[in-house]
Amino acid sequence: MTPGGPAPVPRAGAGGPVLAVVGATGAAGAVMLEILSQHADIWGEIRLVASARSAGRRLAVRGEECEVLALREEVFDGVDIALFDVPEEVAARWVPVAAAKGVVCVDNSGAFRRDPEVPLVVPEVNADAVRTRPRGIVASPNCATLSMVVALGALHEAFVLRELSLSSYQAASGLGRAGLSALREQLAAVVADPDLGTRSGDVRRAVGGAGPFPAPLALNVVPWAGTPEADGWSSEELTVREQTRRVLGLPELPVAVTCVRVPVLTAHSLAVHARFEREVTVARAHEVLAGAPGVVLVDSPADGEFPTPADAVGTDPAWVGRVRRSLDDASALEFFVCGDNLRKGAALNAVQIAELVAGERTAP
Amino acid sequence: MTPGGPAPVPRAGAGGPVLAVVGATGAAGAVMLEILSQHADIWGEIRLVASARSAGRRLAVRGEECEVLALREEVFDGVDIALFDVPEEVAARWVPVAAAKGVVCVDNSGAFRRDPEVPLVVPEVNADAVRTRPRGIVASPNCATLSMVVALGALHEAFVLRELSLSSYQAASGLGRAGLSALREQLAAVVADPDLGTRSGDVRRAVGGAGPFPAPLALNVVPWAGTPEADGWSSEELTVREQTRRVLGLPELPVAVTCVRVPVLTAHSLAVHARFEREVTVARAHEVLAGAPGVVLVDSPADGEFPTPADAVGTDPAWVGRVRRSLDDASALEFFVCGDNLRKGAALNAVQIAELVAGERTAP
Ligand SMILES: NC(=O)c1ccc[n+]([C@@H]2O[C@H](COP(=O)([O-])OP(=O)(O)OC[C@H]3O[C@@H](n4cnc5c(N)ncnc54)[C@H](OP(=O)(O)O)[C@@H]3O)[C@@H](O)[C@H]2O)c1
Ligand SMILES: NC(=O)c1ccc[n+]([C@@H]2O[C@H](COP(=O)([O-])OP(=O)(O)OC[C@H]3O[C@@H](n4cnc5c(N)ncnc54)[C@H](OP(=O)(O)O)[C@@H]3O)[C@@H](O)[C@H]2O)c1
Repeated sequence: MTPGGPAPVPRAGAGGPVLAVVGATGAAGAVMLEILSQHADIWGEIRLVASARSAGRRLAVRGEECEVLALREEVFDGVDIALFDVPEEVAARWVPVAAAKGVVCVDNSGAFRRDPEVPLVVPEVNADAVRTRPRGIVASPNCATLSMVVALGALHEAFVLRELSLSSYQAASGLGRAGLSALREQLAAVVADPDLGTRSGDVRRAVGGAGPFPAPLALNVVPWAGTPEADGWSSEELTVREQTRRVLGLPELPVAVTCVRVPVLTAHSLAVHARFEREVTVARAHEVLAGAPGVVLVDSPADGEFPTPADAVGTDPAWVGRVRRSLDDASALEFFVCGDNLRKGAALNAVQIAELVAGERTAP
Repeated sequence: MTPGGPAPVPRAGAGGPVLAVVGATGAAGAVMLEILSQHADIWGEIRLVASARSAGRRLAVRGEECEVLALREEVFDGVDIALFDVPEEVAARWVPVAAAKGVVCVDNSGAFRRDPEVPLVVPEVNADAVRTRPRGIVASPNCATLSMVVALGALHEAFVLRELSLSSYQAASGLGRAGLSALREQLAAVVADPDLGTRSGDVRRAVGGAGPFPAPLALNVVPWAGTPEADGWSSEELTVREQTRRVLGLPELPVAVTCVRVPVLTAHSLAVHARFEREVTVARAHEVLAGAPGVVLVDSPADGEFPTPADAVGTDPAWVGRVRRSLDDASALEFFVCGDNLRKGAALNAVQIAELVAGERTAP
């Protein structure tokens, strides 16, 4: 089952706006090229950019081979919209360069997400925010926030959100290509020996270095993502908290988050405990979720139907299920949500934003 | 030995009480034999019991080979205490048979955990409860509850618990030998193909049957454990809720639980959001946890120190870390806890209970 699975659409973009994809060779970038090839083709030109290491490589987009250019100021000449899928420090340096040339920049990194002059946009939830971008920059929320906030936005509209407690189950590719290859290597190392995973530290010794993770991920879960912040919090946890508040427009919302990495290649999951102002019922929540754009409801556990990352990977929507009303509070819901961190969590959301911006030119 | 009655007389010719381990060949049973071999040897005889399939097998305990007996009424002749590590339906049938013969039964299954006449005991938290056992039966809580409740018991004593929201990261061996071998087989099947885990359903197709899990566990997380109960809840979720309340002696405690299986062989983890009556500080919580029996505090994330199942597996204590005070509520804490579901989560807790019962004879 691939709900919302994309169908290829004919090419019609000659004369349309010029799009640059910066970081086209990365984990998120590769998915972006796939999505651009599947969506309605509104682009006059798509220009692929990465580091000097990748210059001259040829990648397919919209059924054509396209040469990768090394990132420098000139690549933005004539560009209308640029999508940035590069490390935070690269975005911090280069997004303003492109913006200064009049390019509308959509950034997938953390570089601008806290800037009050940069809207943080999830089209299903706050599409209008894209129009006010004094710096010419729009940010896409981090991958752990994205699928969850799509579902939560719909529930908030129906029931009015009051408090959140979240635990994440985040995939290796949240750390890009390095995360993917490290998990694959670790799994290969542990699978050979059936005794591994039964003694303290044996997995640590077998996999050697943990790669980009702060502890081995194969046969393990790692309750840490990002860098240390004050009072024991991780940057990822504070990010999920802040961005959920910003996207929902609830700057005071109490949000408690624990971010945990799990041995899944791609697709993040979250267990959500949400308290609302209004009373909730599972039936009404199902109705709301089933009608919400960007959400697919998968909630019949007795038939083995619940969202899993292995089903959500490679698909567009937020998969939501395990919807239960709290047994102690008629205004609280539990649910579980899975979404592809490289698609909706990164590439898809940025492409949707670019399409919104491109649409402004033709809109009344 | 009469339940609640006078202390039994030691077996003639043996130095201490006679212990039966029923289910000695299983995942929890094997760990029990290991623990009995490591603890102070207070037992006059240890009798190993399993199904007729295993009769005649020889297993090592206390450095001696011991023959496995097929379960029938006669194996309880002369037994003082019996530890049951068998499927629920086997326990439901055979525990009363042994209890009727005067054997104190310690059950690790779900068969008696809801019986108000059967104490549910975690020695670090409610050791005294073991003394009142009108049916001659003592139950050990389920593995997802155990390590968490050890940490929570200490925090409750210091701060007075008011509300809980929990998400679990449960290992395959929670489903016994069948869970362990299914996860190993699934991992072997997916590791061969580096493309798996990138397309919806590809892992499902590659692993074939999911084994005892309701969906494949390799490269996946499965938000379901147990059997369906009313209103979308799983039996595992209701069990964690009820048993936490019972062990802590807080029958009205609001508890919201989401149980999720992860591709870890052994050692369960939980992300806990706990609200207390009193104000908390991380420093004070650290102090409480560092001094709590059965807890090891591992909380220095900047140095890569936090609890993980790969470190907790094969060890006795609850590993607790990632302790943070809620940013919105000075009376709430977040923490992460890992514990070996086969040791503290099953075998160790039951052995500790048996040792308490054995100690009653010598106590004043
Ligand atoms: N992975 C996710 O789930 C996810 C989700 C949301 C947001 N993001 C964000 O998206 C960004 C990219 O993530 P990713 O996972 O795709 O990372 P990745 O797989 O490591 O790819 C990094 C990309 O950035 C390019 N790059 C690196 N240094 C560069 C430089 N100095 N100049 C130009 N290009 C450079 C790389 O080009 P070369 O191939 O030439 O090195 C590559 O295309 C990050 O900011 C990340 O936080 C990721
Ligand atoms: N695994 C955990 O994390 C965990 C934690 C807490 C509690 N528990 C509970 O502990 C119990 C055992 O779990 P496990 O994981 O060890 O299961 P397991 O690995 O499947 O082992 C089952 C054991 O029960 C025996 N058995 C099965 N049917 C029997 C019968 N008709 N008569 C006599 N013995 C029989 C088996 O003997 P044969 O080898 O002869 O078949 C084996 O020794 C279950 O109730 C489980 O819920 C498990």
